Amino acid sequence: MKPFLSLTRRLSSPLAGTPLHSNIRFTVVPIRRLHSSPFAPSTPRLKFQIPQTNKKTPEKMSTDATTLKGQPLDRAALESMLRRRLFYTPSFEIYGGVSGLYDYGPPGCALQANVIDLWRKHFILEEDMLEVDCTVLTPHDVLKTSGHVDKFADWMCKDPKNGEILRADHFVEDVLEQRLKGDKEARGLKVEEKEETDKKKAAKKKKNKGGVEAVKLDDAVVKEYEEILAQIDNYNGEQLGELIKKYDLRNPATGLQPTPPVSFNLMFQTSIGPSSNLPGYLRPETAQGQFLNFAKLLEFNTGQMPFASASIGKSYRNEISPRAGLLRVREFLMAEIEHFVDPEGHKKHARFHEVADVELAFLDRHTQLSGSTVVKRQTIGQAVKDGLVDNETLGYFLARILLFLRKIGIDEKKIRFRQHMDNEMAHYACDCWDAELHTSAGWVECVGCADRSAYDLSVHAKKTGAPLVVRQRLEEPITIEEWDIVIDKKNFGPFYKKDGKTIENALLATTQEQRGELVKQLEENGKVVIDVPGVNDGKVEVSKDLLAIKWVKRVENIREYTPNVIEPSFGIGRILYSLMEHNYWTRASDGGDEARGVLSFPPAVAPTKVLLVPLSSNKDFTPEVRKLSQKLRSAGVSSRIDDSSASIGKRYSRNDELGTPFGVTIDFQTLKDGTVTLRERDSTRQVRAEEDKIIAAIKALVEGTKTWQDVEAELPLFEGQQEVEVVVR
Amino acid sequence: MKPFLSLTRRLSSPLAGTPLHSNIRFTVVPIRRLHSSPFAPSTPRLKFQIPQTNKKTPEKMSTDATTLKGQPLDRAALESMLRRRLFYTPSFEIYGGVSGLYDYGPPGCALQANVIDLWRKHFILEEDMLEVDCTVLTPHDVLKTSGHVDKFADWMCKDPKNGEILRADHFVEDVLEQRLKGDKEARGLKVEEKEETDKKKAAKKKKNKGGVEAVKLDDAVVKEYEEILAQIDNYNGEQLGELIKKYDLRNPATGLQPTPPVSFNLMFQTSIGPSSNLPGYLRPETAQGQFLNFAKLLEFNTGQMPFASASIGKSYRNEISPRAGLLRVREFLMAEIEHFVDPEGHKKHARFHEVADVELAFLDRHTQLSGSTVVKRQTIGQAVKDGLVDNETLGYFLARILLFLRKIGIDEKKIRFRQHMDNEMAHYACDCWDAELHTSAGWVECVGCADRSAYDLSVHAKKTGAPLVVRQRLEEPITIEEWDIVIDKKNFGPFYKKDGKTIENALLATTQEQRGELVKQLEENGKVVIDVPGVNDGKVEVSKDLLAIKWVKRVENIREYTPNVIEPSFGIGRILYSLMEHNYWTRASDGGDEARGVLSFPPAVAPTKVLLVPLSSNKDFTPEVRKLSQKLRSAGVSSRIDDSSASIGKRYSRNDELGTPFGVTIDFQTLKDGTVTLRERDSTRQVRAEEDKIIAAIKALVEGTKTWQDVEAELPLFEGQQEVEVVVR
Repeated sequence: MKPFLSLTRRLSSPLAGTPLHSNIRFTVVPIRRLHSSPFAPSTPRLKFQIPQTNKKTPEKMSTDATTLKGQPLDRAALESMLRRRLFYTPSFEIYGGVSGLYDYGPPGCALQANVIDLWRKHFILEEDMLEVDCTVLTPHDVLKTSGHVDKFADWMCKDPKNGEILRADHFVEDVLEQRLKGDKEARGLKVEEKEETDKKKAAKKKKNKGGVEAVKLDDAVVKEYEEILAQIDNYNGEQLGELIKKYDLRNPATGLQPTPPVSFNLMFQTSIGPSSNLPGYLRPETAQGQFLNFAKLLEFNTGQMPFASASIGKSYRNEISPRAGLLRVREFLMAEIEHFVDPEGHKKHARFHEVADVELAFLDRHTQLSGSTVVKRQTIGQAVKDGLVDNETLGYFLARILLFLRKIGIDEKKIRFRQHMDNEMAHYACDCWDAELHTSAGWVECVGCADRSAYDLSVHAKKTGAPLVVRQRLEEPITIEEWDIVIDKKNFGPFYKKDGKTIENALLATTQEQRGELVKQLEENGKVVIDVPGVNDGKVEVSKDLLAIKWVKRVENIREYTPNVIEPSFGIGRILYSLMEHNYWTRASDGGDEARGVLSFPPAVAPTKVLLVPLSSNKDFTPEVRKLSQKLRSAGVSSRIDDSSASIGKRYSRNDELGTPFGVTIDFQTLKDGTVTLRERDSTRQVRAEEDKIIAAIKALVEGTKTWQDVEAELPLFEGQQEVEVVVR
Repeated sequence: MKPFLSLTRRLSSPLAGTPLHSNIRFTVVPIRRLHSSPFAPSTPRLKFQIPQTNKKTPEKMSTDATTLKGQPLDRAALESMLRRRLFYTPSFEIYGGVSGLYDYGPPGCALQANVIDLWRKHFILEEDMLEVDCTVLTPHDVLKTSGHVDKFADWMCKDPKNGEILRADHFVEDVLEQRLKGDKEARGLKVEEKEETDKKKAAKKKKNKGGVEAVKLDDAVVKEYEEILAQIDNYNGEQLGELIKKYDLRNPATGLQPTPPVSFNLMFQTSIGPSSNLPGYLRPETAQGQFLNFAKLLEFNTGQMPFASASIGKSYRNEISPRAGLLRVREFLMAEIEHFVDPEGHKKHARFHEVADVELAFLDRHTQLSGSTVVKRQTIGQAVKDGLVDNETLGYFLARILLFLRKIGIDEKKIRFRQHMDNEMAHYACDCWDAELHTSAGWVECVGCADRSAYDLSVHAKKTGAPLVVRQRLEEPITIEEWDIVIDKKNFGPFYKKDGKTIENALLATTQEQRGELVKQLEENGKVVIDVPGVNDGKVEVSKDLLAIKWVKRVENIREYTPNVIEPSFGIGRILYSLMEHNYWTRASDGGDEARGVLSFPPAVAPTKVLLVPLSSNKDFTPEVRKLSQKLRSAGVSSRIDDSSASIGKRYSRNDELGTPFGVTIDFQTLKDGTVTLRERDSTRQVRAEEDKIIAAIKALVEGTKTWQDVEAELPLFEGQQEVEVVVR
């Protein structure tokens, strides 16, 4: 609730009539009547801080990231490799590109498809979830009800001279960090910048007109700055504006203070149909479509509770200035589960015992409050028992999330579960944990797991009148005694005329507690006064001639309730990027060349499983290569042929960069005796055997029923003549 | 080219200042400077008539559609069943819905995922295509270059009284058809309307203020109307406007003529980023992202040609008034292939021989011109040989499309390949065929297969300067003799000042033929006059002091060419709907109840493969059911448990409607001897054997290695006590 209060003071606009203001109202947002006022409450964005956004702004480089083998991670080298190998590439690059938009090339696409396939098996099939595919286009009313139109926004300000648009929190952060850096320099301390690429340095230098100024600060000021930075995500627009004024924060590019922050809604707007009367947005999350279909899904599930729906699809957020590669994009793939559960019965989960012994690294809110980031390793069973995690269902999903991340090859040492702070959660949530993955951008929120309570179903039901509830037959009927509102229908309508229905609804909407009060009023004054917004001055009198309030007794056979929702929400793009970082390492090359990159993906997610390499482009190899490729396809294993003229070493090296776990060489010996060699990517060791044995071994390796050690134990090691050419370490 | 000419006469607006006009220009399209003028050439939409749109407007009901078993198809009953079983459902229904937007529920989602999975295997994996996943958000410049901003539009007009917006061609069609119907009635002929549901009839009745008026027409008028209807898709906006005036076509709702048609661009517009300077659209096709990445994909393919890229993703078209269920929607899934091929060498295909004997049903353009729709059955080998299909690559894909449709369970009798008419194709295309599927909406275009020539790569290369070409080392160098433009750089720039570069570019852009002419001019007049749009009055003189044109000889080792593109483009939603219709049939029920629906999907695409049915809700069955479910999952077979209290017959009947091919019953005998029954959906016959034998049988059936006949031959038939309860015919 708090964030709302602090905004009430801003009702008159400090910006009215300024260029920024008019720009935002009339140009940025094409459909005028849709536009959420720049002064609407905006801070409770936190409700929406699921995968795409992040407390630890991913723009910041972390200097302690490591490769799979513990080497310091050179992010620039990795990204250059990923782009060279077309894992991803900036969209529309030949048109100059658009920040925050990326395309996946063939290996990125295959990696994504494999991760999604595992996700579907791990969650949807394993637990009989009801998958739905809802539209991205969403009409205004739906997102107005859900709160996105009013609250899904960031604060932005504008440089009054060059018109640059800045995300306010990032701007404050940047300037204060620059000053702290300058202070360190002035004190003669080393400033760590090793993670930055030359290009970035150059860009920053230009922006800063010559880089960091070495100015020593007072110790007290340093402390103040550090405190501000520690809680930079907790400021609302007004507070950010105050910081800008108080500390005279200026845009290095112009030397001027930017204008006060205004709210910018992060949804992409459009108009549905040929007339302008159906404004809409691109959905910012897949959840709403699932909530709207709740009643149909419950019926599909033959009325049985609990159950979960799930959805995999694109969502959109019009970030103000995305600048963290794949970690903050404007169009992204999400996979979301909405698990509907009876709020009574402590949200127990029938399969909780299956995961009770799974150990997680927890960073709870108390630890964070104390200023520490030391995690506690504990089983989920213990965590729920101790009340650290609110309930079994939430705990069950946290453990299942960990098992999934482990399965696809995320480095378990780089996973932690961070609990949301009280002020970070929406007011209706009772607990929320993020699975954060450690990368070169620090700890990045990749999966959110929130208890959204009954909020969404309630607001949509209230708005539309649709019964988004569960009706449960009671084993034993219950007797209810309560105050009942009795209206004299015959006279009520004629008396209040056009306001009759509104006033009646206001009366019927009263709580039992309020009715108790109204009974007293009726007795004492012969009338009641109730709040009816929009009628008269908002107060309406109803006399006892038109209204009675009676204490009645009812027997009920049906219990009606609005389910609560536990929502595990996966940002697939962020997971993919983390997966690439976690599986990346380099090995020294023979000839003293540059170290060569390897992506040690588990076979299950590797874009291609097998590389087929004929020794040379000799045409005699072609039929053999084709046959092998066809056999692998029949075995359900994807392969690619590389019959280019590059050396075998070069070809394997290229495929190490692509993360291809296995390589098969077809040579002259193959033409004689039908044997081929099988190379394992990480060890570069090889075995040699008849084709069908090798295919069986590959199938077992890919399906995970055998390890490379098993294969080495069964098939003869190959250390023949070609080794020098093949092994590239 | 023709469609452009007919529009030049419309440069002054018959609509300027009218309410419709201003409505479209300033309200419909939020970003003003982006808006394609309503008077821009618009007819060549045909270029874009891939799956989503259709010549045979799917809104029209066909009365000759049949079920899988040849019964007359009751479309209303089928749609009601599909919605009841949550194959799909109108999006945002509790908010009143939005026309043209649908959600897929669990069975629809699974069907879609299975079809996509088969598509990926059949095309991408089988042919090593390079899959890419590009963004839906697309900046204006890209779609301006591709031609969509100017040409991707439909004609719409507006009722001057009630403001109703009408798609012009549909409006003309509707009114003429009503008149023909009225004529038939007046002549005492039966008017076929049996396919319309009561609801639709009611709606139409309301719209028509009492339905068809029985008015007899002159025979000549009937003929005119029929001729217009036959070519309704060939009229441009002006011509549609003329038809409305000439025949005094009036909106039945108001009795008024609508305003003249204006062009409405079908792309959804939005704005990318916080400032308004980056207008964009939701892509109307996935193709453009693939073209823009051409150079990177070629490099990824180590420079080898030919190759194909592929993409599966959503596209968007803001249809004026969609009204054909899943067949015309505003958000839809596409799967598109761009096969890049050298235009020299007759577009041969290395694997053409593999499909040469596949027989297709062709409806060529000559047959269509003669007014016939009789198809010719022929092998693709013969069709290419005869020149019916332009080249091997196009032919290869037509055959592969047929094989795919057959594999997923499309009724082969309901597939035809229709060639585009000359005036239907974009001017650069040399041949284009649609795979059309027959449904209750007539023949529906579901897959387009066009030869897009070098158009897209050329226009993007020209606009951006990016080299979207293949550079091929020539085995033997070639000698080229040609006219070369030589400019006196030292004096040229100073002479023409700011226009120098533009004029130079215009000179360099001249063709060899033009240069030949210029040489003559130089010799005769000592100067040339060339067209330079935007400089002076568009004509510029260049004297021989500044320009020479020489005949030169060069030796080239590299051949540079822009590849041609063959594009098979699949509208997945339309294919899914056709698949449901083609596999639907009804069987009479025992008790004289209503006939029961069955969806006889092939196991490979069926949403769920196996239904597990415990005889009753007795708790003793639970462990057995769980174990079976787990075993099936390990075998890679999806199953669902139905332990609801409905009778076994009811439960099987529900799953016949869901298209679940197999059912396993767990009964008391199971608890004694571990045997279960296996039921086949289409025959309702059952076998009984030990659990593991049944699982092996199911796996073989799902993978397609065994038929139900094989299984019946191996396992004992079950005709026990439960049959009456189980069999529902």
